[in-house]
Amino acid sequence: MSDISAVKALVFDVFGTVVDWRSSLIADFTKWGDQRGIKADWTALVDGWRAVYAASMDEVRKHPERGYMILDKLHRQSLEKLVAQLSITGLTDADLRHLTMGWHRLHAWPDSVAGLTRLKKKFIISPLSNGNVALLTNMAKFAGLPWDLVMSAELFEHYKPDPETYLGAARLLCLPPEQVMMVAAHNHDLKAAQKLGLKTAFVARPTEYGPLQKYDFEAKGDWDIVAKDFGGVADRLGC
Amino acid sequence: MSDISAVKALVFDVFGTVVDWRSSLIADFTKWGDQRGIKADWTALVDGWRAVYAASMDEVRKHPERGYMILDKLHRQSLEKLVAQLSITGLTDADLRHLTMGWHRLHAWPDSVAGLTRLKKKFIISPLSNGNVALLTNMAKFAGLPWDLVMSAELFEHYKPDPETYLGAARLLCLPPEQVMMVAAHNHDLKAAQKLGLKTAFVARPTEYGPLQKYDFEAKGDWDIVAKDFGGVADRLGC
Repeated sequence: MSDISAVKALVFDVFGTVVDWRSSLIADFTKWGDQRGIKADWTALVDGWRAVYAASMDEVRKHPERGYMILDKLHRQSLEKLVAQLSITGLTDADLRHLTMGWHRLHAWPDSVAGLTRLKKKFIISPLSNGNVALLTNMAKFAGLPWDLVMSAELFEHYKPDPETYLGAARLLCLPPEQVMMVAAHNHDLKAAQKLGLKTAFVARPTEYGPLQKYDFEAKGDWDIVAKDFGGVADRLGC
Repeated sequence: MSDISAVKALVFDVFGTVVDWRSSLIADFTKWGDQRGIKADWTALVDGWRAVYAASMDEVRKHPERGYMILDKLHRQSLEKLVAQLSITGLTDADLRHLTMGWHRLHAWPDSVAGLTRLKKKFIISPLSNGNVALLTNMAKFAGLPWDLVMSAELFEHYKPDPETYLGAARLLCLPPEQVMMVAAHNHDLKAAQKLGLKTAFVARPTEYGPLQKYDFEAKGDWDIVAKDFGGVADRLGC
């Protein structure tokens, strides 16, 4: 723990921390599949999709010569493989696009919008997410997230937890790292941010992965704030 | 004029188009100078400052080997020269910083916030300004500008009217240029945007430069929308 009185901006992990990607996608795809008459194990698709997320970003990291690739494109590539693996048939190119854009249509956790609205009165609030700018912008409009600005890994052409993302956010805000607080439901994200001098807030989201959740049930680090939800973060910051 | 029914996002010039930089700065500095007991012709400073704006960005354009420099830094460099030229004495480093940060404390034109609020319901709205990200973010909080995201020349390391800015904005939004509309009070900005395929809206701000205004009293091009204020743009776009 350290002095957090100088914090001016809060940057948020988004998938899992601000929005409930798993329940949102399963509900969205199930409804859509029923309407389109496409049978599939949508839960398996969603869980499988997220399971290859880290590996898909590792490919970008390992091959800088190929250039940066935004998350929409990684999502689409992973989806095409998964659809084949899960033997989901009858999907057109427009269908694959619709599913990929599902990541733009995620619902916030019940406390997110109210908490962000309180925090926005006193702090600059922004996502700092591996989602691309358009994804985060569309999601904000869909879910009513009141960001002041939208910061994405895309702006730095590096995915979290690469240092360029956390330091890039501080640079764009013209703030030293210690005046920026990273808010996340993932201990590894906070660990990377803290190492670079950012302040940290942990909010547990124990149902993020549904029955598959294996870690991040609780804080596993010396974070500046540990709260049960965004309202708790606002309480701690005097908002 | 062309078909504007496919437009999904509006990007706005900011200085002069959304905010009244001249009146804001003169009032801010006059009040501050009185409080600090510093005598100066603040109007001359503000007008002189803006007069060297284009040349300061040209320096960045001409010397890519020096690296991109954000507008806050250009403002500070120009200010130091002007203070000497105008024989304003007694300014500390903190004073120079306070004046430079005046560009973060600009008031909106009377119709801006209401117009943006209407437009935001149907479109993605963002600045596309030569101001740096922190400047635009701080200004939005100060003036209550309800942006969905903040796009700045800084993100593209090119100042408008370089093509990289307009095309960069479309790329970040994952939209083709013809689905993005540039809104500006400056004909040259719209000309550059239109050439690259963006749609265009002109809003006259005939008092932007006070008695020094020489052009941009009216539309000088085949813009898709010409309106007297942001409410007029919203009317035309069915918001």
